[in-house]
Amino acid sequence: MATMPPPLQLHLTLPVWVHDLELAAAYPGDEAKVALAIDLARRNVDARSGGPFGAAIFDGNDRVVSVGVNRVLPQSCSVAHAENMAYMLAQQRLQRSRLNVPDGAFTIATSAQPCCQCYGATVWAGVDRLLIGARSEDVMRLTEFDEGPLPADWTGELERRGIAVARDILRDEACAVLASYGEQGGTFY
Amino acid sequence: MATMPPPLQLHLTLPVWVHDLELAAAYPGDEAKVALAIDLARRNVDARSGGPFGAAIFDGNDRVVSVGVNRVLPQSCSVAHAENMAYMLAQQRLQRSRLNVPDGAFTIATSAQPCCQCYGATVWAGVDRLLIGARSEDVMRLTEFDEGPLPADWTGELERRGIAVARDILRDEACAVLASYGEQGGTFY
Repeated sequence: MATMPPPLQLHLTLPVWVHDLELAAAYPGDEAKVALAIDLARRNVDARSGGPFGAAIFDGNDRVVSVGVNRVLPQSCSVAHAENMAYMLAQQRLQRSRLNVPDGAFTIATSAQPCCQCYGATVWAGVDRLLIGARSEDVMRLTEFDEGPLPADWTGELERRGIAVARDILRDEACAVLASYGEQGGTFY
Repeated sequence: MATMPPPLQLHLTLPVWVHDLELAAAYPGDEAKVALAIDLARRNVDARSGGPFGAAIFDGNDRVVSVGVNRVLPQSCSVAHAENMAYMLAQQRLQRSRLNVPDGAFTIATSAQPCCQCYGATVWAGVDRLLIGARSEDVMRLTEFDEGPLPADWTGELERRGIAVARDILRDEACAVLASYGEQGGTFY
């Protein structure tokens, strides 16, 4: 029997409701950026279109370059976390694999601390700042998600590579989305 | 001015030469699996279709489920490392986000030690074994690629999550591909 050729093409999508988002022209300040990420997470839970995580990438003028939500179960893709979706979509939009090369300043805001996978992705994506809502311990307390193993000094490792980290931004609001997902029983989509 | 909607769709591809690969019906043994990963890396360098890294995923009968090569520069995507491409394509083919849930035993073979991003991805992908050719120090000695920060006991963290790690398989052959890429001047594609 002839061996089937391996698959060559991959297609990932955000939920259709993203099309109807009414985004502001700009999101100045850290809180406004994380608020958008949390809003995306909440919408993803409400629409049952993935896990309770959202992220957004902003350029140096505080404008949205891309957004992402968790699409792991709907798309059968363990790589499709909110941060990774946002990174890939931003890079595709700007047609470069490192957002801030050759120039520009980019920020990612995420509703919860990146897991081990999105932590590693953050090292290569070309962002200058990482803004975080809920902590890893919040994720593991309020949902059944694991966050995976990180380097002991994970913030320091990022900062040594030029990526500033700010945590606990709208942490309570971020936790509320995680809690509502946990109360609805977890891994639906 | 109306704000542009953010992008919703993402399309990633392997190089066209993957279509013409003549794969064996099965790859029994660890060396045969890593040899395929190294062959993919070499072909990717020769075709200038991405960085010098290859990976392949096998089911419990040693059959290829998917292959991957580095597509970062051609596809403007920092997530598109060889292991991630292989994970995403295997999961799409089997229509599940964790390869070994609910059942099955899966192995990934990679031409070089996963970087921090693919290390994290390996935690969630649903593989039972990770077979590695070149070491991280080989990658950094023979090319300009960084491997990024890992947990101090990175193999132990995987093994505690049910992922066995075997290293230094065909390490010299894997290093030869990295060296040939380095000699050709690096980041072409």
